[in-house]
Parts: sequence; C-alpha cells; structure tokens
Amino acid sequence: MPKVTEAHRAERREQILLAAARCFARDGFHATSMDTVIAEAGLSAGAVYGYYRGKDELIEAAAGRAVELLGDVLPVVAAAPSPAALVEQLLGLVTEVADRLGFDPTRIAVLAWGESVRNPRVREPVARAYTAIRAHMAEAVRHWQRDGRMAADADPEEVAKVLFGLLPGFIVQRQLIGDVHPDRYAAALRALTGGAGTG
Amino acid sequence: MPKVTEAHRAERREQILLAAARCFARDGFHATSMDTVIAEAGLSAGAVYGYYRGKDELIEAAAGRAVELLGDVLPVVAAAPSPAALVEQLLGLVTEVADRLGFDPTRIAVLAWGESVRNPRVREPVARAYTAIRAHMAEAVRHWQRDGRMAADADPEEVAKVLFGLLPGFIVQRQLIGDVHPDRYAAALRALTGGAGTG
Repeated sequence: MPKVTEAHRAERREQILLAAARCFARDGFHATSMDTVIAEAGLSAGAVYGYYRGKDELIEAAAGRAVELLGDVLPVVAAAPSPAALVEQLLGLVTEVADRLGFDPTRIAVLAWGESVRNPRVREPVARAYTAIRAHMAEAVRHWQRDGRMAADADPEEVAKVLFGLLPGFIVQRQLIGDVHPDRYAAALRALTGGAGTG
Repeated sequence: MPKVTEAHRAERREQILLAAARCFARDGFHATSMDTVIAEAGLSAGAVYGYYRGKDELIEAAAGRAVELLGDVLPVVAAAPSPAALVEQLLGLVTEVADRLGFDPTRIAVLAWGESVRNPRVREPVARAYTAIRAHMAEAVRHWQRDGRMAADADPEEVAKVLFGLLPGFIVQRQLIGDVHPDRYAAALRALTGGAGTG
C-alpha cells in the first residue's frame, strides 16, 4: 500500500466534490446517484465511498464548499464604493468562478434553496454564509453613510438585506429566463440608486 | 349518478390543488406522494386521480396556478408611483395571499425554482409569468422617466429586471434566514433609491 498523505486525501475529496457538483449542476440533486458521481469522478466505487458515505453527505459538502467560496468575496464586499459597484463585483466573481470550475454554481444555488426548505443540514450553513455576507454589506453601508453618500437615518442591516437580495434576484432570472448580464444589471441598479454612492 | 356540473368540477380541482399546495409547502415536492395529497384533500383516491393523473401534473398545475395569482398583481405593478412603493405593494400582496390560502406560496416558489432547473414544464409557465411582470415593471419605469423621476437614459427593461429581482431576493432570505419584513425591506429600498420616484 502506498502511503496516503493528508494532501493527497484532500485532493481526492476535492476531485470527488467537483465531480458531484458537475453532476448536481447538470442533473439536479434528485436525479444524481452515487453511481453517476463515481463515473464522473473516474474513480472506483470503493475510493468514492471512502470519502463520502452517500449522496446526502455530498449535498451537504457541496453546500459547505459554496459557503467557503463565498468567504473569498467578503473583503470585496466591505470595500465597495457604491451599491452598484458592490453588486457588479459580486456578479463578476460568480461568473469568474463558473468559468474556472466548468459548471454554473448559481444553478446549484437554486437547487440548494429548494433543498433548504426541507433539509436544515443544507439550509444552516448556507444561511450562516449569507448572514456573514450581509454583515459585510452593512459595513459598506456604514462607510457610505459616514461619507455622506447614503441617508444617515437608513438602517444599515436592512439596506444590506436589499443589497444581498439583488444576488438571488439575478440568479433566479439567470436560471429561469436566462437574459440577465452582470454589467447591464449593475448599470440598471446605478440608474435606480441615483445619488446613493459613486462609482 | 348525480349530475356533475362544470362549476362543481372546477371547485373539486381547486380543492385538490390547494391540498397539494399545502403538502408541497409543508413537505417539499419530492417527499409529497399522491397518498399524502389524497389524505390532505379528504377525498377518495378515485376522486383525486379523476382530476390529476399523478404528482407531476399537480406540480405543473401548482406552477400554473401561481402564475394566475401573479396575473392579479399586474395592474398594481404598472401604476406604482416609485420603486419602493412597487416592491412594498407586491410583498404586501404575497403576505395577504399567504394568510388567505393558509400556506406560504413563497416556500413553493423556492421549491419551484429548484424544480425548474430540471423540468421545463415547470420552468416555462413560471418564466412566462415573470417575463409578463417585468414588462409591467418596465412600463412603470417609463412612467417615472416621463415624470422626470428617473434618469431618461436608463434602459427600462434592464431596470425592470433589477426591480423584479428584489422579490426573489426577499423570498430567499424569508425562507432561509427568516428575518425580512415587507415594510422594512421597502423602507431600506427607499433609502437606497433616494431620489428615484416618490412615495
């Protein structure tokens, strides 16, 4: 038996998780079986089951992984110069991630929301991640208020909810209708927010 | 055999559909069986299968019915005096429908989005309804532009996408985090849109 290092194990876990994510994005959670994931990963059944005991673990791991990816965007969020710039940067990152990973994470997001309604083990990590992003958005709103670019009497936490909400709004239209584009969406938000912030 | 009138048949169909909607909102699409729906409707299996051949037909009918409910809101949308008023009125209607029907339609919306990714027979009627709402929102934007309450060079169709997107944004947070309220959401949007529109 070759010595299996921690780095090797981590790489394998990631390989299986990305294979599962591609299957989920293509077929949805319910139509994806462990056999599909095993074929997609190009590994033996024994190898895959050695890392994930079943599909539920993979769904939860995919939700957890999405949460980690979202963690990368937090510095961008807090430093954004305006609502439109903030949304434009986030949507740009989403598109960049889709190109890099070879599947559309916003498609998995929509599936995960549906799954969340029933499964707290999917809902809870996703809700925690969204709450963290909103906290950083509220921080950005406080900056805008200090700079006089947003009404001082607005509630930063509530404004952050509206800002955050622009992302699922984009994603639902991207998945169901398919006619939204990050730059045009941000430009329209800029028209809508008028004087709120600059850039 | 008593004469079964068209009105009676329509009433029965509605009774079964509402029972199915309550099951979907409570258990999700996949955990709901025809037996669950039959029990919830308080009818015989034969009676229920006489109207709907299976769960897929019920899911599609529920999506279609949601689309009809959305049709009711179109006049409100086109006449809204401002972005915040528009969103506040729509979110108010959603809450009112939830109270009237005894289940949360926004929960079914989230499930339907997840289902849409895989099932064009769910996606297509929903996408058509959303496109119709956006067209009425674009009409409202054109009013605001004519009245000088929004930049004349903004693209009404693109602004409508952002406005429409505020609703799924609210719904996702309502279902996953549970801390959004129509009036506070609208107030925050008012702060964010500043001078765009009045009211």
